Amino acid sequence: MDGHDVAPGLGIDLNADLGESYGRWTLGDDDALLDVVTSANVACGFHAGDPTTLLRTVRAAAERAVVVGAQVSYPDLVGFGRRFIDIAPADLTAAVLYQIGALDGLCRAAGSRVRYVKPHGALYHSVVYHEEQAAAVVEAVVAYDDALAILGLPGSALLRQASAAGLETVREAFVDRGYRADATLVPRDQAGALIDDPVRAARRAVRLVREGAVDSVAGEAVSVNARSLCVHGDSPGAVAMARAVRDALVEAGIALRPFVDAVS
Amino acid sequence: MDGHDVAPGLGIDLNADLGESYGRWTLGDDDALLDVVTSANVACGFHAGDPTTLLRTVRAAAERAVVVGAQVSYPDLVGFGRRFIDIAPADLTAAVLYQIGALDGLCRAAGSRVRYVKPHGALYHSVVYHEEQAAAVVEAVVAYDDALAILGLPGSALLRQASAAGLETVREAFVDRGYRADATLVPRDQAGALIDDPVRAARRAVRLVREGAVDSVAGEAVSVNARSLCVHGDSPGAVAMARAVRDALVEAGIALRPFVDAVS
Amino acid sequence: MDGHDVAPGLGIDLNADLGESYGRWTLGDDDALLDVVTSANVACGFHAGDPTTLLRTVRAAAERAVVVGAQVSYPDLVGFGRRFIDIAPADLTAAVLYQIGALDGLCRAAGSRVRYVKPHGALYHSVVYHEEQAAAVVEAVVAYDDALAILGLPGSALLRQASAAGLETVREAFVDRGYRADATLVPRDQAGALIDDPVRAARRAVRLVREGAVDSVAGEAVSVNARSLCVHGDSPGAVAMARAVRDALVEAGIALRPFVDAVS
Amino acid sequence: MDGHDVAPGLGIDLNADLGESYGRWTLGDDDALLDVVTSANVACGFHAGDPTTLLRTVRAAAERAVVVGAQVSYPDLVGFGRRFIDIAPADLTAAVLYQIGALDGLCRAAGSRVRYVKPHGALYHSVVYHEEQAAAVVEAVVAYDDALAILGLPGSALLRQASAAGLETVREAFVDRGYRADATLVPRDQAGALIDDPVRAARRAVRLVREGAVDSVAGEAVSVNARSLCVHGDSPGAVAMARAVRDALVEAGIALRPFVDAVS
Repeated sequence: MDGHDVAPGLGIDLNADLGESYGRWTLGDDDALLDVVTSANVACGFHAGDPTTLLRTVRAAAERAVVVGAQVSYPDLVGFGRRFIDIAPADLTAAVLYQIGALDGLCRAAGSRVRYVKPHGALYHSVVYHEEQAAAVVEAVVAYDDALAILGLPGSALLRQASAAGLETVREAFVDRGYRADATLVPRDQAGALIDDPVRAARRAVRLVREGAVDSVAGEAVSVNARSLCVHGDSPGAVAMARAVRDALVEAGIALRPFVDAVS
Repeated sequence: MDGHDVAPGLGIDLNADLGESYGRWTLGDDDALLDVVTSANVACGFHAGDPTTLLRTVRAAAERAVVVGAQVSYPDLVGFGRRFIDIAPADLTAAVLYQIGALDGLCRAAGSRVRYVKPHGALYHSVVYHEEQAAAVVEAVVAYDDALAILGLPGSALLRQASAAGLETVREAFVDRGYRADATLVPRDQAGALIDDPVRAARRAVRLVREGAVDSVAGEAVSVNARSLCVHGDSPGAVAMARAVRDALVEAGIALRPFVDAVS
Repeated sequence: MDGHDVAPGLGIDLNADLGESYGRWTLGDDDALLDVVTSANVACGFHAGDPTTLLRTVRAAAERAVVVGAQVSYPDLVGFGRRFIDIAPADLTAAVLYQIGALDGLCRAAGSRVRYVKPHGALYHSVVYHEEQAAAVVEAVVAYDDALAILGLPGSALLRQASAAGLETVREAFVDRGYRADATLVPRDQAGALIDDPVRAARRAVRLVREGAVDSVAGEAVSVNARSLCVHGDSPGAVAMARAVRDALVEAGIALRPFVDAVS
Repeated sequence: MDGHDVAPGLGIDLNADLGESYGRWTLGDDDALLDVVTSANVACGFHAGDPTTLLRTVRAAAERAVVVGAQVSYPDLVGFGRRFIDIAPADLTAAVLYQIGALDGLCRAAGSRVRYVKPHGALYHSVVYHEEQAAAVVEAVVAYDDALAILGLPGSALLRQASAAGLETVREAFVDRGYRADATLVPRDQAGALIDDPVRAARRAVRLVREGAVDSVAGEAVSVNARSLCVHGDSPGAVAMARAVRDALVEAGIALRPFVDAVS
């Protein structure tokens, strides 16, 4: 079901990627970001996130009542899950089940549970178009727990298939990415792909919630209907932008609230 | 609680390691062994077992109502979990939570659940004496689900601590390993360590259940109180021995039954 | 240079994949196969082959004067290198350098050296058409040692680019794969893809050397000019076929000899 | 041979760990540190350092004529090589050969070569006392190239065995670690273990070169004869300290020079 979209002005979810450190390597400022977002896409060990990092992250999320989602990935630590892998659907289903379960096991120790699934990196982009891989992800989520929601790109094969399978689907918009007139994102290697001005990003966030619209790179209003806004946190500037977005939403009287409850 | 030991002659559990293939590499004959045992110690990906292999294994176990346990390990694929790693207890706890959860996620897709935990390889041996690592494993199991049992070596720090923490503990005996007079195993590099005659192993199995005893390498009767017998399956000969043990137990009127139910 | 093709009837190289065990897992019968082939495509740890396995393999090769080539792969242990990965060319170049060097380090301890490079699995197939990845492999080989040869598929982007870069290129034919009229291989999921009769494979091998030709699945003679014949060894039947091919070549008076010397 | 120690006042080598980023994760400021040191202990992929990172690092080292050593490690990415692993000596020898070769392959593309070996992390500490693991490392270095030097802790089993095997050995001292009266280091969990004042560290460095001595935590002069000083660079403060040490040495008229040439 993708029909329960939030009425403009009422409230919105903020999601970000977390738990992406690995062993000795630190990435992002999880504590700072957990004070900003309402939903945490937590890595599951396949592109980032050793068990100790993940346990710390889901505990910190639980303390703040931030909802945990499983950010499932191709198995590709050295490539941070950013490279397409032509994995067989059956293998992808098993890999997604393994990852959701692993993160959920850590959540149990933190008194919470995994509440939704969001594909990461190259997998996120593949399941926009790749029907077999999208089906494999949906099959894993249904098999694990059909009460889990799926967070993804509006118009993606993933959300369409998930909805057809009876899963709750949640569409997201990006406050720091340029949009084209057809509501797709400007590719990263083109002008206007990234927005790095916190004030502008914050303004776009408020408009996305109030009007369900955003200006395209060419200046036309584009309709973007989303129940969650994605912010980033893997650089000091990114955390500042996430905070600016949150502050602007609050100031505009928009409630920040997760799209599902932290515990079922 | 370690007090509900089976009365001699009534029944016994047979456990074995399964799911130890990895990608292109096959190890053991899971299908054959699943027809023999009542409890399957299934790998969790840290010493063996890719997600696809594990999903196939827990599905095959579910079809035969074989109970699934999580065979947790040090993170050591190239060493098959057979090398001691001086891992910090907090890291071990997180690693065990991750593994139990991952396997449990695959079990959910098979309509079953992880019902017990058994450490693998070098970790199995470490937690006999290493109090901190034993405590780390117990902490993970309690945090995940204190209804899970722990299967291990009689007299080990692991079972003692698990029992103190309120977990159900299950002691195992080995049908193919030589015992010393103090009920410890003959080290693998000493004479009498391994028993490779299926007839002799089968006879020992029956006696272990009926009398709670086994002959030591020196010939004295040794008291060994166990609720589960461990058999092996990673060679053609091992599967034949496991079958011989099962047949002898059945012929002796001993019921083969898991120490917990397959589903909770 | 790809011009020094062996005259029919004079001699031929036999190559096979080796060193593909990993830790506890055994794959193929390296010792048996090393008695058959003249060139060994040895894994480098990215799709298979832990250091101990690889050292044993290159030592066994050195004892038999079998030439060692580096069978470089995508980094994909769980997928055995059989899945396309959309790796950036610069990353692929570094990965290939790392692998050649690692295997060469082990060869030094065995008194030999890596003498050629052959891509494995999905990378083998990618570099037939994928110009950027082919260029990345060639760049690595040139940077490592431009005296190394490259073994690959006739007509591939890899061999074309390698030749243009001044590397020695060696074309191979397959004794156990069906050919189409245009000298490409019958895809594995189509009828006639695989030849499992050792007698037929042996006959084809002799004809490939004598006439530079093979029958297509449709029965026409196809011209295939190759300096090396690829045999397989990852099953008991495969080793038997490799032996049959070798015996038939010897009986036909065809010398078995590597396309390069074992030491430079 | 460990006899060619530098006369006080003449010159000294500065070494540091480099190439310890991995894929998406950055650790340390390699460029800054390469402007300070004369020898770079470059990771080899087992505790840190993906091939792309390593290639960039050895190229940057070559541009500055900084000598490259292979910082070999236990296979333990998630633990950053900081945990003892009870690896069999034969496996350790093969693992060290693999790592030296891999890094040397990347060096070839940079126009340089690996010139020495230094164990990393837990392996560094193990081979101080663990005779079998020390022997395994020495065996690998001898087998790879007996012209390679070994850099390690004065008094370690590693340097003693390396010297006995005919390898050049280089003893190092630490400018930022407290010493005990017997010239061993103060353990990290005790008072006085770490020196974080750049001025004090710089003063100690100059004295180490001029007098071959350092003050112990108790205040007595301790004789420490070293041909290389180890500095760290994995934090902004560490780079500043390394610079302060270098500047103080230069100001004191002490030449900074590697203990071997960058190319053989």
